[in-house]
Amino acid sequence: MHAPDNLLQLHINANRMYEDFREIQAIGLTEDGSLNRVALSPQDILAREWFASRIEEAGLLLRDDDAGNLSGVYLSKIRKAPTLLVGSHLDSVPNGGHYDGVIGVLAALECLRTLKAAGIELECHVEAIDFTDDEGNYMGMFGARAMAGTLEPDALMDTSTTDYGAFRAAMIRAGMQPSQFYKARRNPADLVGYIELHIEQGPRLERADAQIGVVVGIVGRTNFQITFIGEAGHSGTTDMYRRRDALRGAAQFIMRAHDLVRERFGDGIFNCGNVEVYPGSFNVIPSRATLSVEVRHINADMLNQMETMVISVARECAAAFRLEVIPQKVAYYPAAAMHAGMIETITNACDQLGFSHIELYSYSGHSPQFMSRVTPSGMLFVPSIGGIGHHRDERTEWQDVVNGANVLLHSILMTAEAAREPRQTATKRLNGAKSDRSANPHSP
Amino acid sequence: MHAPDNLLQLHINANRMYEDFREIQAIGLTEDGSLNRVALSPQDILAREWFASRIEEAGLLLRDDDAGNLSGVYLSKIRKAPTLLVGSHLDSVPNGGHYDGVIGVLAALECLRTLKAAGIELECHVEAIDFTDDEGNYMGMFGARAMAGTLEPDALMDTSTTDYGAFRAAMIRAGMQPSQFYKARRNPADLVGYIELHIEQGPRLERADAQIGVVVGIVGRTNFQITFIGEAGHSGTTDMYRRRDALRGAAQFIMRAHDLVRERFGDGIFNCGNVEVYPGSFNVIPSRATLSVEVRHINADMLNQMETMVISVARECAAAFRLEVIPQKVAYYPAAAMHAGMIETITNACDQLGFSHIELYSYSGHSPQFMSRVTPSGMLFVPSIGGIGHHRDERTEWQDVVNGANVLLHSILMTAEAAREPRQTATKRLNGAKSDRSANPHSP
Repeated sequence: MHAPDNLLQLHINANRMYEDFREIQAIGLTEDGSLNRVALSPQDILAREWFASRIEEAGLLLRDDDAGNLSGVYLSKIRKAPTLLVGSHLDSVPNGGHYDGVIGVLAALECLRTLKAAGIELECHVEAIDFTDDEGNYMGMFGARAMAGTLEPDALMDTSTTDYGAFRAAMIRAGMQPSQFYKARRNPADLVGYIELHIEQGPRLERADAQIGVVVGIVGRTNFQITFIGEAGHSGTTDMYRRRDALRGAAQFIMRAHDLVRERFGDGIFNCGNVEVYPGSFNVIPSRATLSVEVRHINADMLNQMETMVISVARECAAAFRLEVIPQKVAYYPAAAMHAGMIETITNACDQLGFSHIELYSYSGHSPQFMSRVTPSGMLFVPSIGGIGHHRDERTEWQDVVNGANVLLHSILMTAEAAREPRQTATKRLNGAKSDRSANPHSP
Repeated sequence: MHAPDNLLQLHINANRMYEDFREIQAIGLTEDGSLNRVALSPQDILAREWFASRIEEAGLLLRDDDAGNLSGVYLSKIRKAPTLLVGSHLDSVPNGGHYDGVIGVLAALECLRTLKAAGIELECHVEAIDFTDDEGNYMGMFGARAMAGTLEPDALMDTSTTDYGAFRAAMIRAGMQPSQFYKARRNPADLVGYIELHIEQGPRLERADAQIGVVVGIVGRTNFQITFIGEAGHSGTTDMYRRRDALRGAAQFIMRAHDLVRERFGDGIFNCGNVEVYPGSFNVIPSRATLSVEVRHINADMLNQMETMVISVARECAAAFRLEVIPQKVAYYPAAAMHAGMIETITNACDQLGFSHIELYSYSGHSPQFMSRVTPSGMLFVPSIGGIGHHRDERTEWQDVVNGANVLLHSILMTAEAAREPRQTATKRLNGAKSDRSANPHSP
């Protein structure tokens, strides 16, 4: 196949991409139909092996880095050309769905195969990438953060807040060296940008009857582990007036924190995703309850306020049951605006291909949140049926996935075209991106 | 050593028992000073081996049965004599204390050594026993229930309510055959009675400044697993009005059930000892929360009422968050009265030895709850400092343990003396015990 006379008529091969989708769906499929492919699990390793063989089959350059990011590169003839990254992640949350992340990686690969098959020569390398541990089995968006250089080199060794022992062990099993991950950092001057296709995981595109969502910003998010500490005792015999039941404080906190955020922070989100109770027997009063809590907000100041108020509710609930409380911030993902040039490119690609589109914020975290710190980044969503995400029922019409992949393809073409500009200009664009680091909630 | 002229001067060897206590304390000792010796764990197996070697050292007959109950027997010269059981359990709750159960077994062993050393010949065999899994690592009071014959022979095979696969595996590792446990059942005609010494695990003896608690009845208890079922979804993107967060329903239930029981059932107890959340990530709305719940009451009717009302609160909380709820009764320990003759015997022993005593109910479950169904059963408590139980800080003054062991010794002597009566009479006593099966809350 060669490039059509009119590049606008270039389209990805929907069936070939669907075959990929069917194959990878089986890797980590559970009995209940969900996908269990948490980062660096045997299933995730199998998925990577599968991806590597697809890359080699496609005649692309196979590349991996010290953070385990795995990619296929469609090389420009200009050896020293910078690289345009496109991709997402193949890992899943525990018992998640089959579209999240996966379609972004498959579409990226399919775009490269399409460009190669059409013999299109570009002024930049294009690299289809699977980022390591996007979902945070060990550390959320680890691959993107390592590549963006936002992690301290000793991040995995520092045990002052979290012990990454299990993460290090999993890396070693996967053939990586935990102390070397920071070498995955890319020089911003070597990058043209980053574009990610993802499912929306929400109902807004469906409600607006739009085919493509052009992401303008990504929500900020903070994860806490909040531990309530009381005193264990025999449930039958301990004096009623001496009980210090950690779980009662935790239960009150869960109720009150949800109410607080709904009442005071309309655009904010609170989730308590896990509770671990110790010692955990029918007949022992819980001495400890550790909650996995996250708060999200598009606006950095409001996120800050939410954090403060949620922790203060935890302190009140602890006091009410004579408990201690230890709130520990375990992760912080700053709100991020997408690059104006990328928003324009994706919008233009939609218009050229005749797809309806809306601009929206992402309430889920994604790699562009970190990649946007070092290179112009953009993101597009395709509709999720019923708005369902992180669940086995998560689904997107295949035609919508194909539409998204074609928008990605044409966004790549336009971005590569813009890369023809002298490097000087490219650097200027990058500097422009840098000033976009913090999200502006008042932009569209 | 031979029997003193006046048997009243017979006392156990406090130092020898203390050496035992120091030795066994080390088996399952954790870094934080608590005791982790859950049933059939490697630590529990070690404790059994230790107990077996103490029995053999003492020149007693080593005996075990198909439920893993392990004992040492001081044989009567009358080969066909019935047996008086005395003992408790060596297993602990996860991270429990060092006195619970243990002192009852050690005191029983020490009583037998004392009787043997004094050359006292009795009309019945006396058997110091360690009952298997009293604390319910797999099935609470398993050993006593198997011996009393209150479990169906296929109890461990029936998966309709609980899968005892892990229990069966643990039994096999410990050298037992899960399908044969029911053979541990003893013929009531072969038993004289059962007496257990235990720590109070509560503050009543301390408050009353009494040395011995004579137990008149044991609390009834029901364990439920209550599962709230909602729908998983991405915490950031799922539509606010479609969320069905299983943990919110569970948290409301924990709050409301505690309040209900405090307000409506003054003598009742509610505990939620564990929560398991699925899938359990920061960024996934919980689709399932399974709670380990127990209710206790001295009065069988009130226990029944509590169960009904607690489940109805669970249904209301589920409805409030559009959840399903599945309450599952996983264990039921009926309230039990102690045998009038045993209460009298223990009381007389206290009086003879000059120890102050009060009668009380036990709010914790103990083996006599089941043993009382087949043989006259009695129980005595020694004070717990600060009323603490199931906790590393659980403690009893050693002198109080020694006092309890001496009351046990003299209760054995009196019961054995009564066993001189023709078997006919012993059978009558037993029939009297049978009519005592259900607790009478209006007795003292």
